Amino acid sequence: MDSRFGPDRRATLSTPLALDGGATLPAIDIAYETYGTLSPARDNAILICHALTGDQHVASTHPRTGKPGWWSRMVGPGKPIDLNKHFVICSNVLGSCMGSSGPASIDPATGAPYAMRFPVLTIRDMVRAQGMLLDHLGIDRLRAVVGGSMGGMQALSWAATLPDRVEAVVVIASTARHSAQNIAFHEVGRQAIMADPNWRGGDYYADGSPPAAGLSVARMAAHITYLSEAGLTAKFGRKLQARADGQAGAKTFGFDADFQVESYLRHQGLAFTDRFDANSYLYITRALDYFDLAEEHGGVLANAFRATKARFCIVSFDTDWLYPTAESRNIVHALNAAGAPASFVELSSPFGHDAFLLDSPELDRIMRGFLEAGA
Amino acid sequence: MDSRFGPDRRATLSTPLALDGGATLPAIDIAYETYGTLSPARDNAILICHALTGDQHVASTHPRTGKPGWWSRMVGPGKPIDLNKHFVICSNVLGSCMGSSGPASIDPATGAPYAMRFPVLTIRDMVRAQGMLLDHLGIDRLRAVVGGSMGGMQALSWAATLPDRVEAVVVIASTARHSAQNIAFHEVGRQAIMADPNWRGGDYYADGSPPAAGLSVARMAAHITYLSEAGLTAKFGRKLQARADGQAGAKTFGFDADFQVESYLRHQGLAFTDRFDANSYLYITRALDYFDLAEEHGGVLANAFRATKARFCIVSFDTDWLYPTAESRNIVHALNAAGAPASFVELSSPFGHDAFLLDSPELDRIMRGFLEAGA
Repeated sequence: MDSRFGPDRRATLSTPLALDGGATLPAIDIAYETYGTLSPARDNAILICHALTGDQHVASTHPRTGKPGWWSRMVGPGKPIDLNKHFVICSNVLGSCMGSSGPASIDPATGAPYAMRFPVLTIRDMVRAQGMLLDHLGIDRLRAVVGGSMGGMQALSWAATLPDRVEAVVVIASTARHSAQNIAFHEVGRQAIMADPNWRGGDYYADGSPPAAGLSVARMAAHITYLSEAGLTAKFGRKLQARADGQAGAKTFGFDADFQVESYLRHQGLAFTDRFDANSYLYITRALDYFDLAEEHGGVLANAFRATKARFCIVSFDTDWLYPTAESRNIVHALNAAGAPASFVELSSPFGHDAFLLDSPELDRIMRGFLEAGA
Repeated sequence: MDSRFGPDRRATLSTPLALDGGATLPAIDIAYETYGTLSPARDNAILICHALTGDQHVASTHPRTGKPGWWSRMVGPGKPIDLNKHFVICSNVLGSCMGSSGPASIDPATGAPYAMRFPVLTIRDMVRAQGMLLDHLGIDRLRAVVGGSMGGMQALSWAATLPDRVEAVVVIASTARHSAQNIAFHEVGRQAIMADPNWRGGDYYADGSPPAAGLSVARMAAHITYLSEAGLTAKFGRKLQARADGQAGAKTFGFDADFQVESYLRHQGLAFTDRFDANSYLYITRALDYFDLAEEHGGVLANAFRATKARFCIVSFDTDWLYPTAESRNIVHALNAAGAPASFVELSSPFGHDAFLLDSPELDRIMRGFLEAGA
C-alpha cells in the first residue's frame, strides 16, 4: 500500500500557500485519513469535508474521545459512501487542532505557538490546502466532494475554486453565505472565549490553563443552534433531573442544573473543551462568518459555478434553522442560472441542523444514488 | 396628591412574604412609578408588568441611561393606555435591581448584600409582591393588568393568583411556560456570568468589579433571541463597519468587529452592564425558567383560569421565535376551556420578539379598544 494512504497520516506540504487575507504560509501540515483503495486509474476518490468542530476521523475511532468516526454510519463497505467502490479522503481543515496547521502549531519563525499570530483564514484557503493535499497524494480529480454544514461550504468552494478537479458535489444542511444571525451567534461564542481571563490574548498554551470556561459557554450557545425547538421539547421538555437518591426530580430553588436540558448543555460544553482548541474555534468561526461565495464572484452566486462541469446534489432539513432550506434553495437557483445539473431535496427531520449527522435512510438513499449515477 | 403616588416611589412592605421556594422574606422594598390620577372610586388603575430587564420607568426617563420610558409610546395622555382615563402603576419586580428587593439589597440579618443568599423567586412571588404594593396603595381591584414577554407571564399569573382583583388581562408576546429552548438560552447566559472570575459566587458588590464580561455575553446571546432572522438580515445583513478614515468597510482578517452586527451586539452587551446587576439576571432568568402556569394548577392550564372573571386579550407576533404564536394559542385554548372571554390576534411584524416594544399601530388599536371596552 502507498505509504501516503491509511490511518493517522500527516503531510507536510512545502509549497507556499498564499491566503485570501494577504499572508503566505511557507509550509503547512495537513492531517488526514484515507479509507478504501484507490483504483489503478486513480479515479474513485471522494473527499469528505468536515464541519466546524469535526475532524478527519470520519469513519475511524477518534483518538482523544475513543468514539466512532463522526460519519461512520455513512462511510464504510456497503454503506452509502461505499468503500468497496470509493476511496475516501478526509483531512482536518487548516486552522483546526487535530494535526493540521493552526493557531496551536509552532511558528517556525519563533519556535513558539502561533496563537493569534496565525493568519486569519477563509473557507477558500481551506479548500486550496485540500487541493495541495491531493497533489501530494497524486490525485488529480475527485469523483466527488461531499460535506455537511461547513463541509458543504467547502464543497461549494471546491466547485468554484478548483472547478476542473471535481466531478460531483454534495452539499448538505449548508449555505452559500453566513447570515447576520449566523455571525451573531458566532460572535457571542468568540466574546465568551475572549472574555475568559485564561485566554490571555491567545497565549495560553504554555501552562495547561486554556480558556475552558469561555469555550464551554461558546459551545453551549452554538449547540442550541444545532437542534430544533421541537427536538429539544421532545427530548427534554421541562423534565427535571432525577435526584441523587433516585427520587423523582424536583426544583431545588437554586442554581444547579435542575432541568435535564441544562445538564445536557453543560455536559456538551464541558466535553467539547477536552477535544478542541479555543483559538481554533475563533479562527474557524471567523472563516465561516467571512464566507460569502457570491462576494468572491462579483456578487453573483451563479458566477461561482460557471467554470465547473460538476453535478450537484443539495440537501436541506426542514427543521434546520441554522442554515434553513431557503439558503439551499438560493444555491439551487444559482446552479440553475449557471446551467449546472443540480438535484435538490428538503428532507423532513425533527432534529434540526444536526440531522445530517444522524440516522436518515432518505439521506442514505440520496447519497448512494447520486454517487453511483456518476460511477 | 397622595404621597404614595408619583415618580420615584419606594414602599417598604413589612407583611412577611412566603415564597414558593419555602423561604419567607420578613419585609420587602418595592420601587414603583405611578402616572395619571387615581379616580375617587379608585377603579381606574392599570398595572403594567415589565419584562426581564425592564423596570418601573414605563413612561418616564430612566434615571441611569437618561432614555425615555420603555413604553412611552404606549402610555401617556391620549395614548393607547390613556392617562386621561387610567391611573397607571408600574413596579420593579422583586429580585430586580432598580430599587426593589433583590440580591444586591442589604440582608438585615447580616448587614451585607444578600448576593446568592437571596431566595430564588417565581413569577408568582413577583405577583404576590405586586398585590402587597396594591394593598399599600389602597387599590383593591385593577381595571387591567398588562404585560409583554415576562410581563405577560405576570399578567397571566395575576388572573390565577389574585383572581378577584383584576378585571382584564393583556398578554403580549408571551407564554404560559418556558420551553426547553427558552431554558437552554438562559442557561447559556447564567453559565457565562458564573464563569466570569469576577462573579465570585455572587459576592462582588464590595469592590466595584462586577462580572461585566460574563453579563455582557449573556445579554448578547439573549439579544439574538429577541430579534428575527429576517429582521437581522434587513438591518445588518453582511454589512461591514465603516473604517475610521471614512472609507467603506473591508474585512480586516482579524478579530475586531468587522461586521455591523458584531459591533451592534457588543454594544448591546456592554451597555447592559451599566444598568443591570448580574445576580438579578441570574434570579430573574431562573424565575422565568421555573414558570409553568399549568404545573401550578395540577398540570391543566385551564384550571389556572377557573376562578377569574377577567376578560383576556392575547397578542403574538408572527416572527417571534422566543415565544412563538403557538404558545399564545395554547393560552387561548386554555382560556376557552375555562370559559373565560378571550380575544386573540397574531400581528405581523419583521422585528421578532422585540416587536411588542416598537411602534405598532395595530397593537395600539387593539390595546385602546380592549381597555375602553371595559371602561
